[in-house]
Amino acid sequence: MLGAMQDWPLRVSTLIDHAAKYHGNRPIVGRSAEGPYVETTWAGVHAAAKKVAQALNHLGYGSGDAIGVMAWNTPRHMEVWYGVSGCGAILHTLNPRLFSEQLEYIINHAGDRVVMVEPDLVKVLEPLVPQLGTVEKWVVLTERANMPQTTLPDAIAYDELLAMADGDYEWATGDENDPCGLCYTSGTTGNPKGVLYSHRSNVMHALFASTPDCIPISSTDVVMPVVPLFHANGWGLAYTCALNGAAMVMPGRDMTAPGLYEMLEKGVTLTAAVPTIWLGMLQHLRQNKLSFSTLKRVVIGGSSCPRAVIEAFQLDYGAQVIHAWGMTETSPLGSVCSFKPEVASLGAAEKLDVQTSVGHPPYGVDLRITDDAGEELPWDGKHQGKLWIRGYGVVKRYHRMEKDAAEPGTQWFDTGDVATMDPNAYVRITDRSKDVIKSGGEWISSIDLENAAVAHPQVAEAAAIGVPHPKWDERPVLCIVGVNGARPPKEEILALVGEHFAKWQIPDDVIYMDELPHTATGKISKLELRKKLNGLGYVHPEAA
Amino acid sequence: MLGAMQDWPLRVSTLIDHAAKYHGNRPIVGRSAEGPYVETTWAGVHAAAKKVAQALNHLGYGSGDAIGVMAWNTPRHMEVWYGVSGCGAILHTLNPRLFSEQLEYIINHAGDRVVMVEPDLVKVLEPLVPQLGTVEKWVVLTERANMPQTTLPDAIAYDELLAMADGDYEWATGDENDPCGLCYTSGTTGNPKGVLYSHRSNVMHALFASTPDCIPISSTDVVMPVVPLFHANGWGLAYTCALNGAAMVMPGRDMTAPGLYEMLEKGVTLTAAVPTIWLGMLQHLRQNKLSFSTLKRVVIGGSSCPRAVIEAFQLDYGAQVIHAWGMTETSPLGSVCSFKPEVASLGAAEKLDVQTSVGHPPYGVDLRITDDAGEELPWDGKHQGKLWIRGYGVVKRYHRMEKDAAEPGTQWFDTGDVATMDPNAYVRITDRSKDVIKSGGEWISSIDLENAAVAHPQVAEAAAIGVPHPKWDERPVLCIVGVNGARPPKEEILALVGEHFAKWQIPDDVIYMDELPHTATGKISKLELRKKLNGLGYVHPEAA
Ligand SMILES: Nc1ncnc2c1ncn2[C@@H]1O[C@H](COP(=O)(O)OP(=O)(O)OP(=O)(O)O)[C@@H](O)[C@H]1O
Ligand SMILES: Nc1ncnc2c1ncn2[C@@H]1O[C@H](COP(=O)(O)OP(=O)(O)OP(=O)(O)O)[C@@H](O)[C@H]1O
Ligand SMILES: [Mg+2]
Ligand SMILES: [Mg+2]
Repeated sequence: MLGAMQDWPLRVSTLIDHAAKYHGNRPIVGRSAEGPYVETTWAGVHAAAKKVAQALNHLGYGSGDAIGVMAWNTPRHMEVWYGVSGCGAILHTLNPRLFSEQLEYIINHAGDRVVMVEPDLVKVLEPLVPQLGTVEKWVVLTERANMPQTTLPDAIAYDELLAMADGDYEWATGDENDPCGLCYTSGTTGNPKGVLYSHRSNVMHALFASTPDCIPISSTDVVMPVVPLFHANGWGLAYTCALNGAAMVMPGRDMTAPGLYEMLEKGVTLTAAVPTIWLGMLQHLRQNKLSFSTLKRVVIGGSSCPRAVIEAFQLDYGAQVIHAWGMTETSPLGSVCSFKPEVASLGAAEKLDVQTSVGHPPYGVDLRITDDAGEELPWDGKHQGKLWIRGYGVVKRYHRMEKDAAEPGTQWFDTGDVATMDPNAYVRITDRSKDVIKSGGEWISSIDLENAAVAHPQVAEAAAIGVPHPKWDERPVLCIVGVNGARPPKEEILALVGEHFAKWQIPDDVIYMDELPHTATGKISKLELRKKLNGLGYVHPEAA
Repeated sequence: MLGAMQDWPLRVSTLIDHAAKYHGNRPIVGRSAEGPYVETTWAGVHAAAKKVAQALNHLGYGSGDAIGVMAWNTPRHMEVWYGVSGCGAILHTLNPRLFSEQLEYIINHAGDRVVMVEPDLVKVLEPLVPQLGTVEKWVVLTERANMPQTTLPDAIAYDELLAMADGDYEWATGDENDPCGLCYTSGTTGNPKGVLYSHRSNVMHALFASTPDCIPISSTDVVMPVVPLFHANGWGLAYTCALNGAAMVMPGRDMTAPGLYEMLEKGVTLTAAVPTIWLGMLQHLRQNKLSFSTLKRVVIGGSSCPRAVIEAFQLDYGAQVIHAWGMTETSPLGSVCSFKPEVASLGAAEKLDVQTSVGHPPYGVDLRITDDAGEELPWDGKHQGKLWIRGYGVVKRYHRMEKDAAEPGTQWFDTGDVATMDPNAYVRITDRSKDVIKSGGEWISSIDLENAAVAHPQVAEAAAIGVPHPKWDERPVLCIVGVNGARPPKEEILALVGEHFAKWQIPDDVIYMDELPHTATGKISKLELRKKLNGLGYVHPEAA
């Protein structure tokens, strides 16, 4: 006997349908490729998305076809977002900052049959065309009148695509487990790996992401995703905004602090990006004595958020920080730092301490930490170990891999992160497994070292890595980029670090660099950093 | 090709697992059958629920078996709630205030194999035993030491049930569409009808109910469901509190205003009940010059909430009112009155007007209004018609019926309510189809008439019904219960009503009564009221 309730498949088209019907006039505005500023609404996005879907079907694309989209955060990207998934195809988001070999690899690996690309990004793809065997159709996200010169074969303009449709279209139907989107990991620890989201996983993620202890967004919010929609499923924001009928401000391609500030001042109440973006923003605010008129909340994740950033936003600029941890593989939210009653009544400084953790998992996410042997570790805030995750939004198997990534049966997925959990289930990411520094058999958290170092006013960026040591196996050293080329004395930096660490944990050396190597999503690449140090012939002073 | 994400079945056991693991210490407190006050936690409820489930399996009950539960809102009820569904059985909530024939009907119709009942309610069931053919096992929700004398055959006590289990138990697994709970409608318009919730429908409802524009509950909330868990799926609160890790205060059987006030003062931040409860509470507060120390939000639904109640809570007692509309058939939330940006900036009086509507549907619910021919009506706030609903939490077919209740294909379900919708999708329930007053072919809203009449300080309750009229077919009359037996002059009441209605809409007569007939959930029964008026030989003055 089954329950006798209605059984609607969880499809992402239900999200945009809801937004268009019940929040149809809510503005979706932003910078576009052609002009400075465009304005539409959820109803407008819905109507255009239907045309995109209908036109793709008309061209012969639909169920199960991968369609690559290389676009900035624009209102039009939202139309394409829902149009591609709505026609039954797979929205494959492309990060234009990937190395060309990586781009070539993921487009071929995904088997993209159509690629849609911003006019200013055709240059990124043109050289790859000969190697891209599966791409049959190129669409440039602009009007015919504004088409750039391009060697992309037979490229059509977005308005020409839309002209193939009259908008009288029913969304593709199908199983809720049908594939819906495809996003490759950032490639920080190796080659990007593909995560094939289903309609169901995306809707479930949008639902639990909207719960009060996660990242609740209401219809009165105006949300600006600074995090690109092509980074880790756009942090789910394209879905959660529709589900809750929030307005959106799309910043377009200008990721400079002045450019973003201008857009934040268009009524934005909630925004989201990686820490480096906010470091730049805070500098800009300070230098120009600016403040926010409407901003209430800032979601920060993707890398560990330094305490100073949290403090500045909250105390100096009146915006609450929501520190979140997630992965492409987890749709992406894994844990969010909201205040449970156990910590809600702590003093200001202690609450800030809590916020340097990545918080606790929402309903729909399950976590555990284990030692290397797979034995579960206690939640005492001290034991650190492998962090595992499972849930509605978590990958089972990487795209086109032979074997499951999650443990068969239990479905536990090894995040590759190292963490502690405290008795209230607050998680602290201390390292990536591959970046762990082990000195004399004991772990030293590279993330904590880095966060301690960037607290120095003249340190712009810091990376801690382990270098070989004759006696201790490995010892930590710090690579530092100074603010405007500054070289704050080694002793000063290490003294600052020493305030939070035991003596044996303090790095042995500080190496000054003009810049640190970054990945396509703006994270420090320890892989490249190690190569760079090797290239420089660096060895530990005591190993010289 | 399917998406390659993890596919966890939506089972309600995942809700209590989450609460116990990530919000384990959150208090679940309340009045019990035995003592004045008991305290447990989500971890405690979880542990006891596992024992309930294990013991039921041990006794031979499980997958698909209906288990009747007649209980007040107590911490123990929460244990039974998750225990019954957790063992694979169907939690059939029993309303002790139903007429005995109705109780007999629903227990037999459901085929309950076990019935669990509060010690003070065994008297309600004892006389029915001979007629209850399917019940094999009786459990009294108390300790053996406190067992009441009872003729329930071989009744065991709750602690004896728990003693059959050691708690080392894995929740029953199965399809997410397995039946999970069973609740019969209130019986306002006829015999109660059974709604068989699935695990999936309950989890989906809990998720969308938790979104910001619906009834967001966070882990810092302390929730007191005054609405009985046996009324309309307990308004979903047993699920949403677990999903969000909220604390709960369970008021037990004492539904008097002083009794409830005492419990509200135990830190409650959010509570929920039908309007009559709050009318009594407001009187109690005024008479005793009391105020609330912690209460922030009051959910009101089940019947239309008069404007004066909303105003008093918000202006005099600092608690925001959340006016909600729902049905047993819809899990139950259908629409909730939160402020969209279009109304958020209105003046205070206009915002109050908005709050007398039942708001707009959350994601997961779809609504439409039609005329009698099934043609969709415009959302202009004027056209009123049949209200239809569909969604994840909506019934497809009543329990053990031959035919679907929802329209095949479209799944639209006729709510039996009459409503208007405005351009922002705010819904106003003007009537039940069966109670509609049609004078000279034109509808007059009985709900609006009643709300206008109870604004009179000496009117405790009012019911508007249509009585036959020689010329106009039907004309409205008002049945009135005065505060403490008062009989405010007819002219005064009608003058008050006249402020909001056209002349032809004003009732022709006022009939004073000592009390109005109510259903088992405390709603005015128009069915019985009509019988009563007929019994009194009432005829319209102009028809006499
Ligand atoms: N708040 C945070 N604090 C610390 N680390 C974080 C935080 N949020 C995310 N991360 C890091 O980012 C990772 C997820 O990033 P993403 O999925 O974009 O790809 P990547 O792991 O950087 O690349 P790849 O998997 O290809 O090496 C997490 O596993 C974690 O290491
Ligand atoms: N906020 C509200 N305003 C007006 N009416 C409401 C509101 N909330 C609920 N209702 C009424 O309550 C009904 C649902 O109640 P419930 O499911 O408890 O059973 P019932 O309809 O009273 O009984 P039965 O269906 O057996 O006649 C709705 O259809 C509607 O008529
Ligand atoms: Mg990774
Ligand atoms: Mg009904």
